Amino acid sequence: MAALNTSFAGQRLNKAAARKVSAKVTTRAVKPVTRAQAVAAPADVSSETVMDCVNTIRFLAIDAINKSNSGHPGLPMGCAPMGYVIYREAMTHNPKNYQWFNRDRFVLSAGHGCMLQYSLMHLTGYPSVSNDDLKNFRQWDSVTPGHPENFITNGIEVTTGPLGMGICNAVGLAMAEKHLAGRFNKPDCEIVDHYTYAIMGDGCNMEGMSGEGASLAAHWGLGKLIAFYDDNSISIDGHTDISFTEDVCARYEAYGWHVQHVQDGNTDLDAIRDAINKAKADPRPSLIKVTTLIGYGSPNKSNSHDVHGAPLGADETKATRENLGWKYEPFEVPEDVSKYMDCSEKGAAAEAAWNKKFAEYKEKYPEDYAELNSIITGELPAGWADALPEFTPEDAGVATRIHSQTMLNALGSAIPGFIGGSADLAPSNMTLMKQFGDFQKDTPAERNVRYGVREHGMGAIANGIALHSPGFKSYCATFFIFSDYMRSAMRIAALSGAPTLFVMTHDSIGVGEDGPTHQPIEHLASFRAMPGMLMMRPADGNETAGAYQIGVEQTDRPTTFALSRQVVPNLAGTSREGVRKGAYVVAGPAAGEDCDCIIIGTGTELELAVNAAKELGAKARAVSMPCWELFEEQSDEYKASILPKGVPTVSIEAGSTFGWSKYADISIGRDDFGASAPAGILYKEFGITTEAAVKAAKSLM
Amino acid sequence: MAALNTSFAGQRLNKAAARKVSAKVTTRAVKPVTRAQAVAAPADVSSETVMDCVNTIRFLAIDAINKSNSGHPGLPMGCAPMGYVIYREAMTHNPKNYQWFNRDRFVLSAGHGCMLQYSLMHLTGYPSVSNDDLKNFRQWDSVTPGHPENFITNGIEVTTGPLGMGICNAVGLAMAEKHLAGRFNKPDCEIVDHYTYAIMGDGCNMEGMSGEGASLAAHWGLGKLIAFYDDNSISIDGHTDISFTEDVCARYEAYGWHVQHVQDGNTDLDAIRDAINKAKADPRPSLIKVTTLIGYGSPNKSNSHDVHGAPLGADETKATRENLGWKYEPFEVPEDVSKYMDCSEKGAAAEAAWNKKFAEYKEKYPEDYAELNSIITGELPAGWADALPEFTPEDAGVATRIHSQTMLNALGSAIPGFIGGSADLAPSNMTLMKQFGDFQKDTPAERNVRYGVREHGMGAIANGIALHSPGFKSYCATFFIFSDYMRSAMRIAALSGAPTLFVMTHDSIGVGEDGPTHQPIEHLASFRAMPGMLMMRPADGNETAGAYQIGVEQTDRPTTFALSRQVVPNLAGTSREGVRKGAYVVAGPAAGEDCDCIIIGTGTELELAVNAAKELGAKARAVSMPCWELFEEQSDEYKASILPKGVPTVSIEAGSTFGWSKYADISIGRDDFGASAPAGILYKEFGITTEAAVKAAKSLM
Repeated sequence: MAALNTSFAGQRLNKAAARKVSAKVTTRAVKPVTRAQAVAAPADVSSETVMDCVNTIRFLAIDAINKSNSGHPGLPMGCAPMGYVIYREAMTHNPKNYQWFNRDRFVLSAGHGCMLQYSLMHLTGYPSVSNDDLKNFRQWDSVTPGHPENFITNGIEVTTGPLGMGICNAVGLAMAEKHLAGRFNKPDCEIVDHYTYAIMGDGCNMEGMSGEGASLAAHWGLGKLIAFYDDNSISIDGHTDISFTEDVCARYEAYGWHVQHVQDGNTDLDAIRDAINKAKADPRPSLIKVTTLIGYGSPNKSNSHDVHGAPLGADETKATRENLGWKYEPFEVPEDVSKYMDCSEKGAAAEAAWNKKFAEYKEKYPEDYAELNSIITGELPAGWADALPEFTPEDAGVATRIHSQTMLNALGSAIPGFIGGSADLAPSNMTLMKQFGDFQKDTPAERNVRYGVREHGMGAIANGIALHSPGFKSYCATFFIFSDYMRSAMRIAALSGAPTLFVMTHDSIGVGEDGPTHQPIEHLASFRAMPGMLMMRPADGNETAGAYQIGVEQTDRPTTFALSRQVVPNLAGTSREGVRKGAYVVAGPAAGEDCDCIIIGTGTELELAVNAAKELGAKARAVSMPCWELFEEQSDEYKASILPKGVPTVSIEAGSTFGWSKYADISIGRDDFGASAPAGILYKEFGITTEAAVKAAKSLM
Repeated sequence: MAALNTSFAGQRLNKAAARKVSAKVTTRAVKPVTRAQAVAAPADVSSETVMDCVNTIRFLAIDAINKSNSGHPGLPMGCAPMGYVIYREAMTHNPKNYQWFNRDRFVLSAGHGCMLQYSLMHLTGYPSVSNDDLKNFRQWDSVTPGHPENFITNGIEVTTGPLGMGICNAVGLAMAEKHLAGRFNKPDCEIVDHYTYAIMGDGCNMEGMSGEGASLAAHWGLGKLIAFYDDNSISIDGHTDISFTEDVCARYEAYGWHVQHVQDGNTDLDAIRDAINKAKADPRPSLIKVTTLIGYGSPNKSNSHDVHGAPLGADETKATRENLGWKYEPFEVPEDVSKYMDCSEKGAAAEAAWNKKFAEYKEKYPEDYAELNSIITGELPAGWADALPEFTPEDAGVATRIHSQTMLNALGSAIPGFIGGSADLAPSNMTLMKQFGDFQKDTPAERNVRYGVREHGMGAIANGIALHSPGFKSYCATFFIFSDYMRSAMRIAALSGAPTLFVMTHDSIGVGEDGPTHQPIEHLASFRAMPGMLMMRPADGNETAGAYQIGVEQTDRPTTFALSRQVVPNLAGTSREGVRKGAYVVAGPAAGEDCDCIIIGTGTELELAVNAAKELGAKARAVSMPCWELFEEQSDEYKASILPKGVPTVSIEAGSTFGWSKYADISIGRDDFGASAPAGILYKEFGITTEAAVKAAKSLM
């Protein structure tokens, strides 16, 4: 780890003196800030203006948080210098087109400090964050919520707040860049070429998931990932000494990162610039630990937990203004700051240059262009869904995880942005695309991702890929039980509209011998209850095809596939179109026809439901219900035609019956944990059988 | 990191030669294996017998997995040497009393290798694992399930399988030991003094949660935690090179661990012994990386994924027998092995010596004895529940997280084993016990635990504490939303019967400005669906007291408390006894009396339910339902007296309505994500109001 020695005089200042010293910054030689150039101190403005920019960022945060009487001023005040260097000097972005493909990405992993980002976006010229929006911080219907939300604020890349998540999203964004660069760049045309910046706090680094992402980032050689660690030694419980005494930098070196330390992140902008330049020069992902004072500038609250998550208040704001020599009104942006911070012109020029390059690329490499453009725009190749096969009852029965493999392989060939892998369970999840190799440090153009045993990191990385460009179809896989390890990433996918595909195999007690630590019970219910998540449990080949088709079509919500370990037959009556309705009739009286009882099954238990209906006679209906969410979206008429009120209804599903009372009079399932034994024995012992369904239906008739 | 240099000749053997070489081990000087002594090569048996012990472990695993046609032979075959040294030589344990308090603890964090542990338990004399039990591996109703389950097999400490979980449990066990030792040991009487051993695999070390536990273990100075890292470079996807190239040992050094490397874990028992001795001599937690060959002994499958999770099969078993020179029948234990491995006598003597010491302790330190004995036996002090206060409507309303603080403080004084803390949210979760200081490296007798921002590790550590001794009442806390980070640990608590107390504050959209990343929606439903978990959502002071009383009474299931950020009044009609029933009447017609409608509320919405019932007239009943699980355990008569069939029923709860159709005709709640705005505005905008409940009830009447 290199501790930076910078030439900036007086970098270890006390708080009160710091503001004045900024005027002494030595102006460097003129270097135009363009992509190919190093980050450098600006030549075209005074260092005083630069420090005014930094303090504007601080005071916009202070003012907005005071006005909303809620928020976290400590991080924006401490991180304003690095934020300034990143957004104004280092990043290539076009505020007037937040969707420009080749923009540098920024992730505030310490999401509670979002006023830093809102201030930076406002100052650099994002129309999405006006001065009025800053005044509406954390208010109903505002675009400046309490944590950064990509689905609310144009220009926010991912949704952060849960700590450790953002840095893993950033790993996904950087991985997506490396993949596309490796796949599409040509010796004469580097069409994909951007950096991913992130700011982490102590909390992010305490979370285990950040370690998962960091380990993969180094393994993959994500040299264009530059993560700042805001090392302020304060967390909510107080000084980090009480729970966090490891050597974080040494840990990142153990992962294989390039690690630097900026000793005075409060005032030493040159050291931050130098660190970014060195980070760019190193082929490894870079951690720049920046030691800051939380709440920098506040004479009585800085360096304490008091400034972490509560407004400064009138008195301390006054004292901070005096301390930093801030003479402007609340929410006022000095004119020179406003002018100098605006990146619109620079950004538009950068995008225009890239657009020109992309036009040349189209000319020279039309096939690559078509693929890359599909990823950039999200427009899938015409007829992609035709790649999904159809099945008849004559086709050999296989586990739905095997069907899933068929779909993944078909979609991998049909859709340019299809990419993904498993958390070290590829041979069990059946997730390898046979036509591709592994995405690795030296083979970045490949599309099978080896996530290792890192479910939580995997989920967040997969979300980052999905949100990099709309044409990415990013899947990730593990046993369904281990959704418990990655639930927060799955929820953030649902909240933030990341259309990630979560491939969850071994979806019930059908797991068998591995026992109750590996057998999902309540998991279907728990995801059905989660807003914004399509929870799919297909029963056979046609339903697996339908589930994947729908999952791929989604542009703003994720899909979870619950897939079986055990073999299922291809049933008569199942269809892709049926899946689209969420629930539909597969045997017995058709929709709208009279029936005297209904047996609903899902996934591996649809076969039992069909058999039960057959036993119950010609007026018994078997309904497949692969997706509750889609069923709820149907018209009342459709719903009533499938599950009419007053008809005795039984559900059968190898999982918790929780929630089924909405549709069924009697629910057959398993509300206690599973056990270690062959799957067939478990089904029998737990009473999840055709006979049980028949008996239940008869008891209602 | 010290690479061990051992004197053992021939430690780098090829597989085929290894068996024979064991005969060349130089016998060491006689050292009785007693607690105070170092682990040493045994003097009273031949080195051939020792190697027979190791191979017996290997072949019992091979045979059981072959017989069940399912399981993971690779780890037991590779880890048999370290397993032998740990169970036979290093550990102080009494197989005939698996509950002996001062036993060394062992955790197989790589739980899929459980046949290693079953073999070791069988051979060292645990009555719980007979030879027949080995033959019933992974079968219905056997005591040898597919992963180690403490609730099935006497002598298993914790339930493992989900990777990374076990090492965190082990941190909890070691932390519990350090706490008790610091609190109860006297200069003349070290009554608490045991080690905690664990075996991790590559998978455990890829999981972020293991890093959380490891960081805390070093921070706390858990010098009696000795973790073996079975470094075999193979995981399910193949060679670990494809996803795991970090320097694990350097990472543990960065956490602050003492790190060693045994280069030949296949045959070099002396190196393992030496490493344990050095680990014991070092005040830090120790990682012993042991390089092994997965499936050691199998000529064609070792060092490959093929041996990880599938039976060897007849042919390869034969080849392995030949390779290792194994001449015994399947499941046969050579007589000298059987005799030599049995630790019953040694263990009984150790326990007897300790019992004598404890009797002396009782004599000399009666008060300390009473506290420690309560922790050892789980017998709580008489009248402990009297410490919980009662409330009347005249008492000032506060948030239920504040009531929770009152209960935690009361219980901390009343119950010797009450211990816990928060994942860096103590001032928000309100979890500090004011009468105690922080459990830290140098103040281990204290009882406030500072977990840092490490929810998953925290949950597993808290489970470890809970399972160390039945008198521990181990609580841990975070925002309810971050239960998503620790869900697997909470589920393992439920499965394994750890009566951990999960204190989850900020339990709804009532969080307000922090927004949807911080607002639980589906979480109540998701835990109600989880088997074995008591999900409590108390409404005020009396209900919080009742919830804690019930939570503390549990001996074999965990409790989750959902607690409010916002203020609630103390309501008329609430009671501790009511909570015990799960649901009960708080206003309107009493249980069994006629009513014309029912409004069910929980937690912060009980007030709205009561107000709605009042508006609806004298025949409207308000029911509080703090715990679905307890309600379901009541008699049918009781249930019908509270929620009679046919009476229009409305539920109101600030969360997902998922599952409520079981009890209510109309459910008022929030099925989409929350938003960032003041809480009061969210309630209004989302329609979670008294008016909505009144309107809904009227629509049904």
